[in-house]
Amino acid sequence: MKPIEIQQLKKRFGQKSVLDGINLTLKPETIYALLGRNGAGKSTLFNIIANRIPQTAGTVTIEGQPISNNDQVLNRLYLMSEVNLYPPRMRVDEVFKTTAALYQGFDFDFADRMVNEFGLNTKTRFNKLSTGYRSILKLIVALAVDVDYVFLDEPTLGLDANHRELFYSLLMETYAERPRTFVISTHLIEEIANLVEQVLVLENGQLTVNDTAEHLSQLGLAVTGPVADVQTYTAGLNVIGHEALGKLRVDYIYGELNEQREIPDTVSISHLDLQKLFIYLTSQEVVNQ
Amino acid sequence: MKPIEIQQLKKRFGQKSVLDGINLTLKPETIYALLGRNGAGKSTLFNIIANRIPQTAGTVTIEGQPISNNDQVLNRLYLMSEVNLYPPRMRVDEVFKTTAALYQGFDFDFADRMVNEFGLNTKTRFNKLSTGYRSILKLIVALAVDVDYVFLDEPTLGLDANHRELFYSLLMETYAERPRTFVISTHLIEEIANLVEQVLVLENGQLTVNDTAEHLSQLGLAVTGPVADVQTYTAGLNVIGHEALGKLRVDYIYGELNEQREIPDTVSISHLDLQKLFIYLTSQEVVNQ
Repeated sequence: MKPIEIQQLKKRFGQKSVLDGINLTLKPETIYALLGRNGAGKSTLFNIIANRIPQTAGTVTIEGQPISNNDQVLNRLYLMSEVNLYPPRMRVDEVFKTTAALYQGFDFDFADRMVNEFGLNTKTRFNKLSTGYRSILKLIVALAVDVDYVFLDEPTLGLDANHRELFYSLLMETYAERPRTFVISTHLIEEIANLVEQVLVLENGQLTVNDTAEHLSQLGLAVTGPVADVQTYTAGLNVIGHEALGKLRVDYIYGELNEQREIPDTVSISHLDLQKLFIYLTSQEVVNQ
Repeated sequence: MKPIEIQQLKKRFGQKSVLDGINLTLKPETIYALLGRNGAGKSTLFNIIANRIPQTAGTVTIEGQPISNNDQVLNRLYLMSEVNLYPPRMRVDEVFKTTAALYQGFDFDFADRMVNEFGLNTKTRFNKLSTGYRSILKLIVALAVDVDYVFLDEPTLGLDANHRELFYSLLMETYAERPRTFVISTHLIEEIANLVEQVLVLENGQLTVNDTAEHLSQLGLAVTGPVADVQTYTAGLNVIGHEALGKLRVDYIYGELNEQREIPDTVSISHLDLQKLFIYLTSQEVVNQ
């Protein structure tokens, strides 16, 4: 398996620049989170990589070969998205057969197990499935195809809490058995924080974060204490947000602390969870303050 | 404003019974959560109340009048759902105008403010909006129409964390200014726990819970301690789930404790959050154990 190389990728829709020079290497056998605000261009990036829409400029290659020209390479990646690719009246079992004909190595055993665990009726027609079960069907297909790169665009859309848990555990199971790359875009950040190795953040058409989940969680800190003490301590640090509660204040920091500066006894420092870090990193007008 | 009365409501799709005798009074000026697993029939219930699909049996009435026969009554309720009602090439501002022509009292000022806060471009055509922004457009319409009953079927589908926060605060704002009934179906239970007054749970076609959020949160308890002590204490109580970690055990209880029985020193009791309570209340095969 070789990495996917994305270089200087740009996409415009009319006047609007959606992707503005993305450089990114997607490594084999790695689980990525692709985060970004609504409209940040996550689906556009997925659609270009999977050759569903053309880029305006830049390249997506494997071993120097453009993905778009190469059926053999395109056959090694799969995009699960919000778009419904199946004929409305196609039955669930027919969806599996059709997919198996297109992608060699469809794992019918694993698909059957997932069907049972999710309680999906394989005789139901696609247009009779509820929103949640449409996502479930697409997920089953995405985890059962034997490809090297799986792109999951909001995989848990409409899934209830139990089904989301089930999906995460099936994902980890299939990843352990047959390591491959998953790139997951989601707005339920906290739920995937523990399964993700690498975090990508898209903002204003650019990749602003490309770091390990572990390193990110070390960089995000909450500094809590009396207003004056907190502000004195965090002066000069990269404060990405704050909250106030009476005479107490929390400053959210992204980046290194000043090792030279002593932490006052009145001030406590704790790690930010990934969702909160993301909210503050990506919000111009911070909510709740 | 009068309550909506739902009596012995049944719905079958072919052989499959989706709603099996729902009895429910929806009170004016109340915020409800409608919870249920994927495929539980939440959308079906909404669609029948809003007269988009016919029931198999039973009635939905206001002041003894069937809702379905009464345009004046139907004009007092609004359903926001996953279905895209707008022509693909209609612009956002045209959606507002069209809605205003159908529903008297469309609040253009509030809609404008929401447009700004969410960063929605009103010149964009519906089919060019991202998944998240389609939800945002529908939400703006649902909060701007002047009706007595608003049904929101998974309103936050595809919304990022900041936009979900923004939606919840706008909902509370408009509710405070102009109290009316909101019925919200969602799978992000914890996020709406604080705004909801009344909780409804649909399961196997029946309404299994219809209670205040406050009372429910008192009924859900986690009993933690050494395995033997926990099991002795919870014997005979309504244990809806458990987790084990080495020699420790957590039993999840729904219902009253036995006041006669003393709580051992080794055992601690805490409240369950609503999402966890729901997961255990509605799962046949409990995940993670």
